[in-house]
Amino acid sequence: MASTSSITLSQAILSRSLPRHGASSSSAPHLQSPSLSLPNFNGLRASASARRRAAPSAAVRRGRALAVRASASVGTVEEAETALVDKSVNTIRFLAVDAVEKANSGHPGLPMGCAPMAHVLYDEFVRFNPKNPYWFNRDRFVLSAGHGCMLHYALLHLAGYDSVTEEDLKNFRQWGSRTPGHPENFETPGVEVTTGPLGQGIANAVGLALAEKHLAARFNKPDSEIVDHYTYTILGDGCQMEGISNEACSLAGHWGLGKLIAFYDDNHISIDGDTEVAFTEDVSARFEALGWHVIWVKNGNSGYDDIRAAIKEAKAVKDKPTLIKVTTTIGFGSPNKANTYSVHGSALGAKEVEATRKNLGWPFEPFHVPEDVKSHWSRHIPEGAALEAEWNAKFSEYEEKYPEEAADLKAIITGELPSGWEKALPTYTPESPADSTRNLSQQNLNALAKVLPGFLGGSADLASSNMTLLKSFGDFQKDTPGERNLRFGVREHGMGAICNGIALHSPGLIPYCATFFVFTDYMRPAIRIAALSGARVIYVMTHDSIGLGEDGPTHQPIEHLASFRAMPNILMFRPADGNETAGAYRLAVLNSKRPSILALSRQKLPQLPGTSFEGVAKGGYVVSDNSSSMGREKPDVILIGTGSELEIATKAAEELRKEGKGVRVVSLVCWELFDEQPDEYKESVLPSDVAAKVSIEAGSTFGWEKIVGPAGKAIGIDKFGASAPAGKIYKEYGLTVEAVVAAAKEAS
Amino acid sequence: MASTSSITLSQAILSRSLPRHGASSSSAPHLQSPSLSLPNFNGLRASASARRRAAPSAAVRRGRALAVRASASVGTVEEAETALVDKSVNTIRFLAVDAVEKANSGHPGLPMGCAPMAHVLYDEFVRFNPKNPYWFNRDRFVLSAGHGCMLHYALLHLAGYDSVTEEDLKNFRQWGSRTPGHPENFETPGVEVTTGPLGQGIANAVGLALAEKHLAARFNKPDSEIVDHYTYTILGDGCQMEGISNEACSLAGHWGLGKLIAFYDDNHISIDGDTEVAFTEDVSARFEALGWHVIWVKNGNSGYDDIRAAIKEAKAVKDKPTLIKVTTTIGFGSPNKANTYSVHGSALGAKEVEATRKNLGWPFEPFHVPEDVKSHWSRHIPEGAALEAEWNAKFSEYEEKYPEEAADLKAIITGELPSGWEKALPTYTPESPADSTRNLSQQNLNALAKVLPGFLGGSADLASSNMTLLKSFGDFQKDTPGERNLRFGVREHGMGAICNGIALHSPGLIPYCATFFVFTDYMRPAIRIAALSGARVIYVMTHDSIGLGEDGPTHQPIEHLASFRAMPNILMFRPADGNETAGAYRLAVLNSKRPSILALSRQKLPQLPGTSFEGVAKGGYVVSDNSSSMGREKPDVILIGTGSELEIATKAAEELRKEGKGVRVVSLVCWELFDEQPDEYKESVLPSDVAAKVSIEAGSTFGWEKIVGPAGKAIGIDKFGASAPAGKIYKEYGLTVEAVVAAAKEAS
Repeated sequence: MASTSSITLSQAILSRSLPRHGASSSSAPHLQSPSLSLPNFNGLRASASARRRAAPSAAVRRGRALAVRASASVGTVEEAETALVDKSVNTIRFLAVDAVEKANSGHPGLPMGCAPMAHVLYDEFVRFNPKNPYWFNRDRFVLSAGHGCMLHYALLHLAGYDSVTEEDLKNFRQWGSRTPGHPENFETPGVEVTTGPLGQGIANAVGLALAEKHLAARFNKPDSEIVDHYTYTILGDGCQMEGISNEACSLAGHWGLGKLIAFYDDNHISIDGDTEVAFTEDVSARFEALGWHVIWVKNGNSGYDDIRAAIKEAKAVKDKPTLIKVTTTIGFGSPNKANTYSVHGSALGAKEVEATRKNLGWPFEPFHVPEDVKSHWSRHIPEGAALEAEWNAKFSEYEEKYPEEAADLKAIITGELPSGWEKALPTYTPESPADSTRNLSQQNLNALAKVLPGFLGGSADLASSNMTLLKSFGDFQKDTPGERNLRFGVREHGMGAICNGIALHSPGLIPYCATFFVFTDYMRPAIRIAALSGARVIYVMTHDSIGLGEDGPTHQPIEHLASFRAMPNILMFRPADGNETAGAYRLAVLNSKRPSILALSRQKLPQLPGTSFEGVAKGGYVVSDNSSSMGREKPDVILIGTGSELEIATKAAEELRKEGKGVRVVSLVCWELFDEQPDEYKESVLPSDVAAKVSIEAGSTFGWEKIVGPAGKAIGIDKFGASAPAGKIYKEYGLTVEAVVAAAKEAS
Repeated sequence: MASTSSITLSQAILSRSLPRHGASSSSAPHLQSPSLSLPNFNGLRASASARRRAAPSAAVRRGRALAVRASASVGTVEEAETALVDKSVNTIRFLAVDAVEKANSGHPGLPMGCAPMAHVLYDEFVRFNPKNPYWFNRDRFVLSAGHGCMLHYALLHLAGYDSVTEEDLKNFRQWGSRTPGHPENFETPGVEVTTGPLGQGIANAVGLALAEKHLAARFNKPDSEIVDHYTYTILGDGCQMEGISNEACSLAGHWGLGKLIAFYDDNHISIDGDTEVAFTEDVSARFEALGWHVIWVKNGNSGYDDIRAAIKEAKAVKDKPTLIKVTTTIGFGSPNKANTYSVHGSALGAKEVEATRKNLGWPFEPFHVPEDVKSHWSRHIPEGAALEAEWNAKFSEYEEKYPEEAADLKAIITGELPSGWEKALPTYTPESPADSTRNLSQQNLNALAKVLPGFLGGSADLASSNMTLLKSFGDFQKDTPGERNLRFGVREHGMGAICNGIALHSPGLIPYCATFFVFTDYMRPAIRIAALSGARVIYVMTHDSIGLGEDGPTHQPIEHLASFRAMPNILMFRPADGNETAGAYRLAVLNSKRPSILALSRQKLPQLPGTSFEGVAKGGYVVSDNSSSMGREKPDVILIGTGSELEIATKAAEELRKEGKGVRVVSLVCWELFDEQPDEYKESVLPSDVAAKVSIEAGSTFGWEKIVGPAGKAIGIDKFGASAPAGKIYKEYGLTVEAVVAAAKEAS
């Protein structure tokens, strides 16, 4: 243990008020263990020096107080403490002000207003290791009001993260920098999730807290709380207005996520001005209705003790998430712009920066961190290393006692897939019974849950329609959090963002979520962020076309396949049968840095000869071709289908072959993977000198021109669907064998 | 007035409890006017017989009571009343059961549970004219829980709407029927909006109620409440869980929409089973927090008087919307399936239908409406005609006294555009100053608001970024509802659905709404329903590309243009400058049966020579071409751009022309309109024998292959954006004059 003599003044002052999670709790027996060895498996980086950290004893605290009295220029310990906190808070404010000013772009208002709560929270409560931002048992912090990212960057900078140096701050919002305009987990280690689109972060935080609660329930033992962290988030009025936050927070209350603590930056200002213009609901009462514990800190601008007390109270409430409403002043310190929308999203301007410096008594040059502040924050590097080392030691002990659980947890932490997991996936032959791909999907989900310890998920109140229940597991609920079936209710958007949080909690957590394919619209912002942030979420989207029949056009996707094919970094699968469904699941799991959507049928489909598990990996492949057997070098016509229409293409091929045509059938199950194949392969599947190409897909033809070419024909649907039995709609909409045969004849 | 002698028994019994809106209110002086002439302008259909209806006097009511005692087989008036209500309620239940059974598809559970509240509401309170479903001053009824559409169809059938005959009920969910699987305003007169996707309907209802409050504030006079109707809606647990409903209901509370009355079908069952699995929040407390008046009817299965009392109470609360939570049993009457999820979305099956008939004492054949029920409901035809005639008379009087206001209101009711309105749109020359299209958009919005009486709208808390404020008007607020700037807060999804409600309230209401283009994702389900239901909503979507710069990839749309081009029945405009922006607004207004999106730049753009207001109407057109001046029949290369990239295409053309090339520049400002042009025109703009076509657009290239062909090149962005100054990103992403020049040379 570090001796008190090596503690600097500022450390001494600040660490007095460090009731860090676990440190003073009797429920943290690990802190009593004298010496633990470090595990050294991949993915768990260990600090070289594993120092233990514990709450200072009363004697030590008294000693520090004396030291302060002897050397500080201020009168009392309390005053000295407050003065240094003030200084640290202003450091955060001016790092934000200066970075935005230099970029001439950004959002200074939130960091200036939230700096007090952020300082107290991050410096005094959040457990992290700045030199290993990926340490598994860290507390998670999410800035849901992502536009205020300079707040987070300032914290990471002060705390000693390598990802945000002074140089990075100076490159705020510049090309190639690690400090982009909104927090991006893939750019800046220390940022957990990607926020900015409002409401996403709070829902991500619900997912992170769910992951913790789930893993804790599965892996903690009476003698070892190996999973044990909090999830903190700051959200603003904008996040509160978004429906997604109500969805996610309703679930958080339902699930009793006691280790989720959300700070509501109640500053009464949004871009349109005072929140009085559009937001006069009673937020606290709403959260109480959602089952949250609610605390109000009335003076968020300087009420440090109130903030501390609120966090302690929140931590003491174990069965409910807590909302700490902190009333603040946006742009605090700016004499002419504070408390106005003008400080929200623009640089203050040189003159106002100067006035703010004067107003807050800040004589320093831009980007300056005063020595005492720097010195104070510097303790997080050794302390963070110690925290991780201590946990690593604890894990080693855990591993010895509970080798099976440790192996599963390790897989979840590292993301390593168990060897041979793919063998669990079902296989099919053309003789296997016809079935809907939603049913076939369920066979895969259940197979994967057996071999992948981090596989869990559920549906937005359509489990029995989406066929997503894991039969070996019960429901994840408040009192059964170790189970793996998630019940999201009719909350698609919240579901998507919660799954992003789960996926980004640990590399080996693989969440899936489900609704009708058309309702991807409800969760599109969350899907887009999964794609952008590299979150491996698997979207199980059933009822994927007019094939759902009678529910009609509100329920029938038309443009959805095209809309996702146009979205970057996401795999859009539309499997045709059992083997393709299994192949799609295999790839969805293997692609750990991008999400996958599976569009699945409501209606039964035959197991087609020629489809293959392996073919799916190439995105597009030849299912059948009679031309070589006819002694021809190339087919007369190529029929291309996806999903349920591959059957139609296959039947049309049979008709055409009867008439002596050389016909190839191609399954284009995943355009993105096909695009990624070498040109040679693509040319081999869809030779450019075969002009007669006909595609059939029960969706928009938009984008198919690229595949069929100007001489080909894309058969699809470019209007909304209709309410009728599926077969009738297929016929009326011209998605028939006859139509394909006619188009093939015309084209060839 | 009809004499009591012509009132049938059932009418006599039921009309006792008809406290219809306005009829007994001293604030309805129009009911005292003895004779009014009918207006006969287009769009206001008048009934041939204009009978007045008023609340029966106490003497009349006594007389009816005696008549009942003399002829009814039941003991008391109250018992007779209740027996007939029971019978009517069971009629509704069995029409739903029978239709679902015949279709072997549909949702019987909700109609069976909601029939009591629906009967009381629709038969006793809602004011409508079955023979003119479009009568302007009708009460609006929205079944937000749209899957229960058979409830609404049964009501329309009983009430005498021509749109739902017995034949239509028998064709429920069949091809070409007027009774599709979810309520669709474009299929079934009497259905106000299209619902099914949960949460949309309640938000539409907020829009309908907003429209009424707005129009009432603008047009009502101390001596004439010419606009005066309620908006009623039924929503279920699913709607309540969706974030959109919280968004819209928060606004409804904020705006004090006192004439919005929502019934919450509290049946504790959703598809995943008991709502305990995912929905344990206190809904009533949440609505109180949102500023609603909340009433709980504990016995929704037979508490007719409680339902009546609740509606009366709700109507008495003028300054708040009311939520009437009605606890019901889903599938009421089904002995084995009631109160389970299995009755939600499947036919009961012949055996259970039989058991239900027995259980409820229903001896009739399928689709039977007992004579007394039929007779009772039959009064709505004359009464509805009288209501409309009375209003028409009132309108004539209004028109005489207030000709200017009447003209504006008439335009809003009929949708007729004032002659010469287009002349109000601004025009530009190449000498006009460079400006962002978002700023140019604001000039158009303000110009339109001056000439179109039904033009109103706003932004989701980005008014000063989207540039959407109407300068001649104030904010629509609780106490200033006659103003036209809507402040939606950060609630894109609610905004979109509210605008659908406004647009479908009256043909001449033209709402616009705004956010950043990327956040169309947040409101996509509402946009899709606008497209499906033919709602003319104008989406003002600024910050339309990486051109927004530093905010980074979370804020930069990439796939959005493609995603809307693939969506049916919506116009996706991306104007390049002032003339194109004005042209896009003109078409957005003219296309009264489909919505339009305008993607607008944050950054300044020059006014380009060759762009035209008229060209926009064709979707794509030649902006410049030097080939004929060079004596050539066709250009060497065609450069195609949209929006901000048309400038790049134009500059590249200049470069290429300097090198002696014949270059055509084409603006493809709206693909949908271009697709609708005759083939000849399309060929004239993009001749197929010019293979060298290069497109440039700061978005996904998905879909461009169709335009540029296999020998052409599409320059775009097929990955996510980045955070940096806009110019830097354009350069790094290869969206440059040089890149276009190089591609043109390669292709030609």
